[in-house]
Amino acid sequence: MEFRLTSEQELFKRTLREWCEANLQPIAAEIDAKEEGIPNEIIKGLADLGVMGITIPEEYGGSMIPGQEITLANLAIQEIARADLSMSVPVYVLLCLGWGYLVTRHGTDELKKTLLPKVASGEHFVGIATTEAGGGSDVANIATAARLEDGKLIINGEKSYISGIRETTEQRDGGHITLFRTDPDAGHRGFTFAYIPTRSKGISTTLYEDVGRGGLSTGGLRYKDVVIPEAYILGEINRGFYLNMEGFSVARILVASACVGAASKALDLSVDYVKQRKAFGRLLAKFEAMSFEIAEDESKLAQLDMWLRYTAWMTDQFYADPGSYTHNDISHAVSICKLEAPLLALDIVKHSMMHHGAFSFTKECPLELAYRGVLSYVVGAEGTTNIQKLIIARERIGQEAIPYR
Amino acid sequence: MEFRLTSEQELFKRTLREWCEANLQPIAAEIDAKEEGIPNEIIKGLADLGVMGITIPEEYGGSMIPGQEITLANLAIQEIARADLSMSVPVYVLLCLGWGYLVTRHGTDELKKTLLPKVASGEHFVGIATTEAGGGSDVANIATAARLEDGKLIINGEKSYISGIRETTEQRDGGHITLFRTDPDAGHRGFTFAYIPTRSKGISTTLYEDVGRGGLSTGGLRYKDVVIPEAYILGEINRGFYLNMEGFSVARILVASACVGAASKALDLSVDYVKQRKAFGRLLAKFEAMSFEIAEDESKLAQLDMWLRYTAWMTDQFYADPGSYTHNDISHAVSICKLEAPLLALDIVKHSMMHHGAFSFTKECPLELAYRGVLSYVVGAEGTTNIQKLIIARERIGQEAIPYR
Amino acid sequence: MEFRLTSEQELFKRTLREWCEANLQPIAAEIDAKEEGIPNEIIKGLADLGVMGITIPEEYGGSMIPGQEITLANLAIQEIARADLSMSVPVYVLLCLGWGYLVTRHGTDELKKTLLPKVASGEHFVGIATTEAGGGSDVANIATAARLEDGKLIINGEKSYISGIRETTEQRDGGHITLFRTDPDAGHRGFTFAYIPTRSKGISTTLYEDVGRGGLSTGGLRYKDVVIPEAYILGEINRGFYLNMEGFSVARILVASACVGAASKALDLSVDYVKQRKAFGRLLAKFEAMSFEIAEDESKLAQLDMWLRYTAWMTDQFYADPGSYTHNDISHAVSICKLEAPLLALDIVKHSMMHHGAFSFTKECPLELAYRGVLSYVVGAEGTTNIQKLIIARERIGQEAIPYR
Amino acid sequence: MEFRLTSEQELFKRTLREWCEANLQPIAAEIDAKEEGIPNEIIKGLADLGVMGITIPEEYGGSMIPGQEITLANLAIQEIARADLSMSVPVYVLLCLGWGYLVTRHGTDELKKTLLPKVASGEHFVGIATTEAGGGSDVANIATAARLEDGKLIINGEKSYISGIRETTEQRDGGHITLFRTDPDAGHRGFTFAYIPTRSKGISTTLYEDVGRGGLSTGGLRYKDVVIPEAYILGEINRGFYLNMEGFSVARILVASACVGAASKALDLSVDYVKQRKAFGRLLAKFEAMSFEIAEDESKLAQLDMWLRYTAWMTDQFYADPGSYTHNDISHAVSICKLEAPLLALDIVKHSMMHHGAFSFTKECPLELAYRGVLSYVVGAEGTTNIQKLIIARERIGQEAIPYR
Repeated sequence: MEFRLTSEQELFKRTLREWCEANLQPIAAEIDAKEEGIPNEIIKGLADLGVMGITIPEEYGGSMIPGQEITLANLAIQEIARADLSMSVPVYVLLCLGWGYLVTRHGTDELKKTLLPKVASGEHFVGIATTEAGGGSDVANIATAARLEDGKLIINGEKSYISGIRETTEQRDGGHITLFRTDPDAGHRGFTFAYIPTRSKGISTTLYEDVGRGGLSTGGLRYKDVVIPEAYILGEINRGFYLNMEGFSVARILVASACVGAASKALDLSVDYVKQRKAFGRLLAKFEAMSFEIAEDESKLAQLDMWLRYTAWMTDQFYADPGSYTHNDISHAVSICKLEAPLLALDIVKHSMMHHGAFSFTKECPLELAYRGVLSYVVGAEGTTNIQKLIIARERIGQEAIPYR
Repeated sequence: MEFRLTSEQELFKRTLREWCEANLQPIAAEIDAKEEGIPNEIIKGLADLGVMGITIPEEYGGSMIPGQEITLANLAIQEIARADLSMSVPVYVLLCLGWGYLVTRHGTDELKKTLLPKVASGEHFVGIATTEAGGGSDVANIATAARLEDGKLIINGEKSYISGIRETTEQRDGGHITLFRTDPDAGHRGFTFAYIPTRSKGISTTLYEDVGRGGLSTGGLRYKDVVIPEAYILGEINRGFYLNMEGFSVARILVASACVGAASKALDLSVDYVKQRKAFGRLLAKFEAMSFEIAEDESKLAQLDMWLRYTAWMTDQFYADPGSYTHNDISHAVSICKLEAPLLALDIVKHSMMHHGAFSFTKECPLELAYRGVLSYVVGAEGTTNIQKLIIARERIGQEAIPYR
Repeated sequence: MEFRLTSEQELFKRTLREWCEANLQPIAAEIDAKEEGIPNEIIKGLADLGVMGITIPEEYGGSMIPGQEITLANLAIQEIARADLSMSVPVYVLLCLGWGYLVTRHGTDELKKTLLPKVASGEHFVGIATTEAGGGSDVANIATAARLEDGKLIINGEKSYISGIRETTEQRDGGHITLFRTDPDAGHRGFTFAYIPTRSKGISTTLYEDVGRGGLSTGGLRYKDVVIPEAYILGEINRGFYLNMEGFSVARILVASACVGAASKALDLSVDYVKQRKAFGRLLAKFEAMSFEIAEDESKLAQLDMWLRYTAWMTDQFYADPGSYTHNDISHAVSICKLEAPLLALDIVKHSMMHHGAFSFTKECPLELAYRGVLSYVVGAEGTTNIQKLIIARERIGQEAIPYR
Repeated sequence: MEFRLTSEQELFKRTLREWCEANLQPIAAEIDAKEEGIPNEIIKGLADLGVMGITIPEEYGGSMIPGQEITLANLAIQEIARADLSMSVPVYVLLCLGWGYLVTRHGTDELKKTLLPKVASGEHFVGIATTEAGGGSDVANIATAARLEDGKLIINGEKSYISGIRETTEQRDGGHITLFRTDPDAGHRGFTFAYIPTRSKGISTTLYEDVGRGGLSTGGLRYKDVVIPEAYILGEINRGFYLNMEGFSVARILVASACVGAASKALDLSVDYVKQRKAFGRLLAKFEAMSFEIAEDESKLAQLDMWLRYTAWMTDQFYADPGSYTHNDISHAVSICKLEAPLLALDIVKHSMMHHGAFSFTKECPLELAYRGVLSYVVGAEGTTNIQKLIIARERIGQEAIPYR
C-alpha cells in the first residue's frame, strides 16, 4: 500500500497553490461581485500550468499523464477552490476537465481535434446540459429530442440550470455535452449524448440570477432545429444515458474536490483566527467550544479527503487497468464523495463564520463567498443528496432499496 | 394551565398575517435587492395596525396591553418574518419593540415624550449600540466613554455592527440606545446606557456591505464630543450594564421570534412543494427522505415555538407580577430561545432549499432571502451561540461553569 | 395563558419525589438485577399516595381529579422514573395508568367494578397486548381472532413482546387489554379490544430474556379457546382499532414522561459530577466540552418537557372539553413526544456516562440502568420512531405523505 | 498510490473470517453471558492462525511480518470483532497485540524471552495498567510508585479499571505493562513502565461487575511491596510516560479496529434484515427511513475504515522507515480513529437495533452484545472522546488549544 502523493504530484500541488494564492485569491471576491465572468488571464494562467489539459492527451494539446487524470484533477480543483471560495473558477475548470475527459474517451477524432485543443488552452469552455425543467436526476422527463438526417443531428427542446451559458456565447466554439432522446420508445436505451456549441444557429439562451458563484453564469438553452454534425456524438447513438452516468461520476468527484478545497481553506481561516483573537481575556483557541469544533471538523474532513483521494485513484485505475474495479465500485465510492462533501463544506464554512462572529456577515469576510457558492452543490447540482443516498443504498443493499419501483 | 392564545390574540395574529401576506410578502425580495431601506408605507401600515406601539403605553402613543407586551410582540414578529424572509422588516420592528420597551420602562419622562410617540407611529427607529470592534458579548473591551458636564453627557468613541445606521440618519430623531463607560474603574458598575440620536452633532457613520437582510442597513458610529441631555440616560448612571442585559433579554426573544417565523414559512413552502412536485413518477411527499425530514423539523419547531411562547409569557409575568420569576429564570429561558432558533431556522431553510432543488439557488426562490438573512443571527447578532450555551450552563450548573474565571 | 403547575400539583410532585427518593431509588438497581419483579411494597406505597388510581374515578376506588388525569400521570411517571432509571417501575405504573384509563372511559360497568379497584390499590396490573410476531405498528398482520358465542368471546391466537407476563400470572385477575379480529373481512373495522386476565383457562405464556428493565417481565401469550365474558369488551365490538389508537396516545405520552424523567435525573447526575470531579487541575465544569454539552441537553430537555406538559394538558382538555382539540391535534402532539423522548433520553444518558468516564461502565453507576432500560423505547415499544415520523408527516403534509399507499 | 490490500493480506482476512464465523460467532453470546472468560480453544485457535503473534518476531515465537504489524493487526481485530460483537475476544487479542508490540520494541531480551512466546502461543495475556482512581488520561494524579533496589523494582500503589484481572491470575505469568512513578519530582520525566505478572507476590485484586464485554474481566490491582526484576522495565527508567503514549497509539488504533469490525457486522445485519422483513406490505428496504440511514452509515463507515487502514499503514511506516512520519502525524491520525470509531459503532448498532424493532431488546438478538460492549470505548477506555479532540485540536491549531494551560 502507499497512500502518499508522488513527489511530482506534491510539486504540482505546491506550485498550483502558490500561483492561485498570488493570482486568484486576491480577485476572487471581485470576480463574484462583478458577475461578468472569469478574467481570461486566470484561465489562461491555469492553462499555462497545464491544469486545463489534465484530462486531454498531448496529441490534442493537453497535458494528460495516463493513469493520473482524476488524481491530478482532484489536486488541482482543491487548490483552485482554496483560492476562490465562491466556486466560480473551480467549477469552470472542473466542468472542462470532467466533460473534456468524456470527449477524450468517447469523442470522434473530428470532435477531439476541434474542441480539445481549445479547452486545453483555456479558450473554450465545455460543460454539461442534461437537466430540464421537469427534473434533474430523473431522466424520464427529458423532452429534448433529435433526429438524424443526412449525417446531421437536428435538435429541438430546452435545458435548464446549465452552467456556462454566457461564457460559451462569448466563445467561438464553447458549448455543452447535451443529453437528448433519439428513440422515444427505448427508455434508457433511447438517449444520445453530443456536443453542441452554444453559438449554433437556432439556440437561444436565458440567464438566471443566482445566489452565489457569481463568476460563472447559469441559465437555460432553447434549441430550435439546431443542426450539428453526426461527428459531435459521443460514443454511439442511443448510448447517451450510460455516458451521462460515466461523465457524472467524474464530475461528482471533482465537485467534491471543490468542496473539500473550500472546506480546508475555511478551516485554515478558523485556525488562524482563534490563534489571534481574544475574548474574556483568553485566546479563542482556548475555548473548547471552538477548538473542539475545529477538531471535529478536521476529523471529518481528513477522512473525506482521504476517501476522495482513494476514489480519484480508483477511477484512474478503472480506466487504466480494466477489470480492476467495477462500475458499482465506482458509483458507490463517488456517491459517498458527493453525498458528504457539499454538506460538510457548508458546515465547516458555517462554523468558521460563527468563529469569526459578526464580521462574517459582511462581504469583507471571504467566507461568505463559500456560504453562497457551496450552496449550489448542497441543493442539487451534479445530483442531489438524496440521489447519492439512493445510489449508496442500492450498491450496499441491492435493487430492493429502490423505493419507486 | 392554559397554553392557548386568547381569542383577541388569535385575531391580532390572523389580521397581521393577512396584512403581511397582502402588503409585505410581494415586495420582500425587492426590498432586499434594492438595499434602499424599507418603504415608509410598510412601517406606517404596521404602525396603523398597532404593531409599532406594542411595547409603548397609550399615553405615549402606543398600543400597549399591560402584561402582554412580549407575548404580542412575539406573535407580531413571527408574522412579519413569515412575509419577509430576508429578516429586514422583522428586525427593524423587533429592535423598535425591544429597545422601545426599555425606554418605556427606564426612560425619563422627557425621553419618553420625545421618542416613543415617533416610534409608535413608525416615524423613528430606535436600535441598540453596544458592540465595538474589540468584541460583542465581552463588554470588558468597551472603550466608548462619556463624561457628565452641566447636565449633559459628552461622548467619545466608536461602535461597530450597528443596525439602522442609514435609517436613523434619514430620520429626525431616530437613534440608538448606547452603552458607554462613565466610570472606567468600576467594572460592570461603570457603564451607562443612554439614547443617542444619530443626527447628533459629532457623529459620523460608515456603512457595511452585508451578506443579507438588504432592507436594513448595518454600519459603524463614531462619536466625537457628542452632546446629549442627561435626560436621555436610561435608568440611572452606572447602571448601564444591567439595563443592557435586560434589554438583550427581550431582543433575544424577538430575534428567536423572527427566526421561528421564517422557519415556519420555509416549512410551509416545503410542504406545498412536496405535494405538487413529482420525481420518478411519485409525489415528493411519498419519499420519506423528504417527508420524514419535514416531520423532524416540524417536531423541533413545534417544541421551540411553544418554549418561545412560554418565555414571552414568563417575561410578561416577570414585569407584571414581580417575584413570579427571577432574573435567572428569564436568562435561562431566553438563552434557550436564542441558542436554538437561528440554527434551527437555518437548518429548516436549508432543508427546504434541498427539497426545491436547483431552483432554490436562484433569486426567484424566496428561500434564499432567509438563507442569507438568518445567517446574521447564526454568526452572532444579539449574542453568539456560545454565549447562550454559557448562560444556560451557568444557570444549570452554577458559577463553576464559567470557563474563563 | 398559564404555564405553571397549580400549587396542588406542585405539592403532589414534591411529595412523590421525596417518597421515591427514600423508598424506590435505593433498591432500583437490585430490582433490576434480581429480575423477580417489583416488590409489593413499592406498588402498594404508590397506591397509598394515590398514584395507581390517577386515571380511575373515586367510585371505582381511584383518585381521579377530572380534567387532570394525564397531567398528573405525567408528573407521577417522571418522578418515578427519576428514582428508577431502569424503567421497570415507571413502565409498570404507566401501563396501569394508561390502559386503566381506557377501561375507565370505555369499559362496561362490570369490567370497571372487577378490575379498576384492584388496579387502584396496586393489586392488579393491567397492560396491553397488541403486537404479534408479524409486526407491531402494522396491524394488518394481526392473526389473533375471536368469535362471539352465547355472550362469550372465544379467542385463539398469539401475542409477542407483551409487558407484564410474569406479573399477571402471579395475580388473580391481572391481565391485558387485547386486540384481536372479530371480522376478518372488515379491515380496520374488524378489530375488537377486550380485557383478558392472564390466568384465564387456555392461556399459556413464555418469557423473554431482555437487555434491560429487569424488574418488569416481557414475553408472549398464546390463547387456545380462551373464553371471556362479553362484558370485558371495551367500547363496542369492531371498534378495537380506534380504541387501540386512543389508548396508545396516552401510553405514548407516559412513555415520554418516563424518558424525560430519566433524562432529567441523568442530567442532574452529570451536573453533580462535573462540579466535584477535577481533571488537569480544574473542575470538569470548567471544560466547555462538558458544560456546553450539558447546556445543549438542558435546552432540548426543557423544550421537550414543556411540550410534554402541553400535550398532557391538551389531552386532558380533549376529554374534559369535547371539541377543544381534534384527534389530529392529539396525534400530532403525542407523536412529537414519543419521537423525541426516548432518543433524547438515551443521548443524555450517554453523555452523562461519558462525563462519568470508565466508572459508568460498571454496574455501580446507576446510569447503566437507564442505558439498558431506555433502549426498549428507542427500538420500538409503544410505536417506533419511524411510525411517529409518519404520523407527524401525515398531520403536517397530508395523506400524500403515506409512503406505502 | 495503492489503496488495496495485497493478495496475502486478503487471504489472511478471508481465512480469519471463515474461522471466526465457524468457531467464535456461535458461542459469542454464551461467552458474554457466562462471565467465565474466553474458552482456551478460541485463543489457541487464533494463535494457531498466527493472530496472537502478529506483533511478535519469529525468534520469540511470533509471526511478525516486519512493516505490516499494525496493518495485519487491524485486519485481524476487525474480523474477530465481527464474530464477537461483545468485544470480549477482540479486546483480549488487541491488548495482547498492542502491548506485546511494545515489549517487542522496548523490552529487554530477558523479558521478551519470558513473555512473548507465551503471548504468541495464546497462553499468556499481556495488558495495560495505567489508570488509577484519580484519573485516566490525566497522569498527574498517578500515585503508584516504585524504588529500585539491588536490581529489583519494589512497587506500591493501586490501579483501577484494568482489563484482564481474572485472566492473568489464572495464568502463570500473564500480567500488565504498568505505569508508575520512579522520580516524584520529575513530572512527565519521572514515570517508568514495566511488566508486572499478576501472580507476583504482594498483589491483590478486585473484580468489577461490568455492563458488557462479559468475557473479559475488569478490576483493580493493589501492589504492596511487589518485587520485579529490573529486566522487566521497558525502555529505560523514567521514560515511561513516552512509552505509555507510544503504546496507547497502537492500542487506540486497534480499539478503533474492533469498533469498525462490530459496526460493519451490525450494518450487515441491518442489510440482511431489511431485505427479508416486510411492513405495510413492502420490504423494509423500500422505506427510505431505513435504506437511507443504511446509506449514511455505510458512507461514514467506509471513510473511517479507509482512514483506519491508512493510519495502521502509516504507523507501520513510522516504525519501518524512520523519518517517513512524525510523532505528530501519528497522534493526529490515531486520535481521529479513536474519536470516531466508538461513537460511530454505537450509532450503527443503535440504528440496526431500531431496524430490528422489539426483537433487539431481547438477548436473542446479537446486536445487544455490541450495544453493551462498545459502550466501554464510548465512555473512555483507551482515552476519552474529549482527549482525542484535544489531541486533534493541538495538532491542528497548536499548543494554544490546550485549555488548561
